[in-house]
Amino acid sequence: MGDRGDGEPRAARTIRRVTIYLDHAATTPLRREVLGAMLPFLTDVFGNPSSAHAVGRRARAALDEAHEKVAHELNAQAREIVFTSGGTEASNLAIKGAAWAGKAQGNHVITSAIEHHATLHTVSHLEKFGFEVSVVPVDRYGRVDPDQIASAMNDRTILVSLMLANNEVGTVQPVREVIERVRHQRGVLVHVDAVQAAPYVGIDVRALDVDLLSLSAHKFEGPKGIGALFIRHGTTLLPQQQGGSQERYRRAGTENVAGAVGLAVAYELSCREREGVVPRVAALRDRLRDAVLVVPGVELTGHPRDRLPGHLSVIARESDGASVSFALDLEGIACSTGSACTTGSAEPSHVLTAMGYPAEEALGAVRMTLGRTTTEEEVDRVAQVVPEVLVRMRVGAAAVAADPLGQQVPS
Amino acid sequence: MGDRGDGEPRAARTIRRVTIYLDHAATTPLRREVLGAMLPFLTDVFGNPSSAHAVGRRARAALDEAHEKVAHELNAQAREIVFTSGGTEASNLAIKGAAWAGKAQGNHVITSAIEHHATLHTVSHLEKFGFEVSVVPVDRYGRVDPDQIASAMNDRTILVSLMLANNEVGTVQPVREVIERVRHQRGVLVHVDAVQAAPYVGIDVRALDVDLLSLSAHKFEGPKGIGALFIRHGTTLLPQQQGGSQERYRRAGTENVAGAVGLAVAYELSCREREGVVPRVAALRDRLRDAVLVVPGVELTGHPRDRLPGHLSVIARESDGASVSFALDLEGIACSTGSACTTGSAEPSHVLTAMGYPAEEALGAVRMTLGRTTTEEEVDRVAQVVPEVLVRMRVGAAAVAADPLGQQVPS
Repeated sequence: MGDRGDGEPRAARTIRRVTIYLDHAATTPLRREVLGAMLPFLTDVFGNPSSAHAVGRRARAALDEAHEKVAHELNAQAREIVFTSGGTEASNLAIKGAAWAGKAQGNHVITSAIEHHATLHTVSHLEKFGFEVSVVPVDRYGRVDPDQIASAMNDRTILVSLMLANNEVGTVQPVREVIERVRHQRGVLVHVDAVQAAPYVGIDVRALDVDLLSLSAHKFEGPKGIGALFIRHGTTLLPQQQGGSQERYRRAGTENVAGAVGLAVAYELSCREREGVVPRVAALRDRLRDAVLVVPGVELTGHPRDRLPGHLSVIARESDGASVSFALDLEGIACSTGSACTTGSAEPSHVLTAMGYPAEEALGAVRMTLGRTTTEEEVDRVAQVVPEVLVRMRVGAAAVAADPLGQQVPS
Repeated sequence: MGDRGDGEPRAARTIRRVTIYLDHAATTPLRREVLGAMLPFLTDVFGNPSSAHAVGRRARAALDEAHEKVAHELNAQAREIVFTSGGTEASNLAIKGAAWAGKAQGNHVITSAIEHHATLHTVSHLEKFGFEVSVVPVDRYGRVDPDQIASAMNDRTILVSLMLANNEVGTVQPVREVIERVRHQRGVLVHVDAVQAAPYVGIDVRALDVDLLSLSAHKFEGPKGIGALFIRHGTTLLPQQQGGSQERYRRAGTENVAGAVGLAVAYELSCREREGVVPRVAALRDRLRDAVLVVPGVELTGHPRDRLPGHLSVIARESDGASVSFALDLEGIACSTGSACTTGSAEPSHVLTAMGYPAEEALGAVRMTLGRTTTEEEVDRVAQVVPEVLVRMRVGAAAVAADPLGQQVPS
C-alpha cells in the first residue's frame, strides 16, 4: 500500500491527519463529563473504601453511589452489581462462578458459536475440568435459534451463556425468547454478555429475566479497566478472585473507585441519551452502508435489521480485509477487520466462519462501527473514501492473482 | 466517643478538619505527576492497544513502554511483566496459575501464617481442589524461619508464596534466605507478594532469584485498579482469565492503558526517590514511635528494626483499637486497626494472632503508616494527640469495665 505519493494535493493529505474513528466496537473515547466525574477520585478523594476513617468513608460513599446508579439503570438492586476489571472478567466470573457453584447439580454449559472469546475460551477452560459444553450454531445472519438452544438442554444443564449483540457483525440475539425457552428447567442460570450491546440496547434485567449480565465501561465512553456483573440476588457463584471481603465477598481486591464512578456515570449518560442517539447513529450508519454496498463484490454481514445501530460490517470479495483496513488507516480512517481482541491473527473470524462464510471470504471482512460522537462530515468523508479504497484494493488483489510470483506486490 | 464538646477552643477544632493521613499502607494518594502521565490516555490517546490502526498503535506504544519501565526497575524483561487489575489479582494469578500448571508434578503449596488474605484465601480455595497447603508459623516479630520453610518442603511441593513485608506490622521477611533454602529442589516456584514492600524495598528479581512477584500501584502513589505480576521467562502458569490474547495470552481483557502507564510512572518515581525517602520517612516514624511508646501499656508490634520505614504498629493494652482509631478520626487523624481489607470485622487480626498475641490484646491494635508526603508538622500534631487519645480511651475502657450494665457508655 505504499501509494501515498500519488500526486494528491498537499492540502488533502493534511486533512487526512485528523483521524476519523470508526472503531467504536473496539473501544470508545472517554467522555469528557465522565472524566470530570472521575477526577475527584484521582485527586482528593483517594481513600480505600474499606478504611473505616473519614477518608475511606468518602470513597465508600462514591462506590456505593456507583453501585446504585448502575443498578437503577438496569432495574436491579445495588447489591446485585459487582464491579470487575472489565467485561472479560465479568464474563469469566459469571461463567466459571456459575459452573463451579452448580457442579453438584450438573456439568453442562450451553453457549453459541459467535460468542466473544471471553465466553468461548472460558467454556473451553471449563472443559479441561470435566464440564461439558454445547456450542449451538447460528444462521447466516449470526442469530441463534431459540429452539436449538432448547434442544441442547439436558438434565445436567446448569448454565446458558449468550451475547445480547455480536461485537463483529452487530447482530442482536433473540435473548428474551431463548430465556423463555430455558426457564422451565429449574436451576439453569442464564448469563447475558451485554458488553457490545450496552450503549444501544436498553436493559431491564427483570423484564429480561436474566441471572447474570456483563458490562464493560470502555464500550460506552467510560474508562478501560472497569466492568460490572449483574448477579441476581440469591444466585450463588464461586468467586474467581480470593482475598479481602470486597463486593460482598464476590470479588476480592481494593476497589477501583474512580473506574466504578466512571462506569456508572458513563452508563447513566448512555441510558439517558439512548433514545436520541440510536436513530441518529443508525441514520448515519445507513448512509454509509448505502455508499459502501454499491461497490461490486461488497456485501453486508450480520442481520439486515436486527443489528446494533452503529455497526456496518461487510465482506469485500477478492479483497484482504487487513489490507483494506490498513489502506483506510493511511487515509486517516480507523476501522478494523473484526474484533480487536483477535487482531494480528491471520485466522478468519470465528464469527463469520460460524455464519457459514468460507475462510477466503471471511478474510475480506471490514468492520466500521460508528459512535455517539460520529459526525455527518465524518460519514461523508468516509462514504467517499471507502468505496475508492475497496475498488483499489480489489484491483490490488487481482494484480497479485495475475502476478503469482509476487514481482509486483502492492503491499 | 461523643466527647467533642469538651470546651476546646473553636480554632483548634477547625484545624482538625485538615485530615492527617496516616494510613498509607491501606492506600496512598495518587501522585500529581502520575495523574499527569495518565491523562493523555484518559483523553486523546483512547485506542484499544489490540487495534491495528494508528489510534490503537499509539495506545500499544504506551502500554509497551509501561511494561519496559516496570521491567527496568525490577531488573526484568518487558515480556516478563503482566499487568493485572491489582495486587490481589496478581497474587491470585501467581498462586493459582502456578499451582494448576504444576499439578502434574505435585500438589503441595507452602505459605506463612501472616500473609495477606489475597494469599491465604487463595491457598484455601486451592485446598477445595485437592491441593495441600502448609502454613508455616512466624515468631513474635512476624518473621518466618527459613529453616521451617525448608522443613515444610516435600517431594510434592510446587510453590512457596511469601510476602516481602507484612501489611499490618511492617515486618520485612528474610525472603532471600528462604529462596536460597528452597532452590535446591527442582521445579519449586517461588512467589513473592511485594505489594506492601514495593515503595520502600528495592527489588531486583534476578538478585532475589524469584519466579513470580506481585505489585499494586495504589500502594506507591499510583492509581487503584492496576497491579503487575512479574513472571520469570520460561515459567508456565495456567491463566486465570480467559478471552483475548492480551498480555501474551497470560491475562485476557482489554488493557487498562491509563492504569498501566500510571503504575509504571509511579513505580519509576518511587524507585528513583527511594534512597532519599526511606531515611526521611523512617526518622519521622521513629519520632512518632518514641512519642507513642511512652504511653503506659502501649507496645510496638512487628520487628523492631527489620520493618518498613513508614510502619508504626502498636498494641494498646486494655484498649479497643477500633475505638482508638475512631477517636483519632474525630481528631482528623486517619489511621487503622490493621488491614483495610478486613476492616469491619470484629475478629482479631490473623497476623497478630499468628505472632502469639492473645485475642484480647490483638483487639488493641492501632496502625499508623506514614508516606512520602507525610510532613514534620503532621507528625508533631499526631505525636501530641495520639498519646492523649490512648490515655483517654484506656480510661474509657476502664469505665466500661467499672459499669458493666452499660449505664454510662462512653461511645
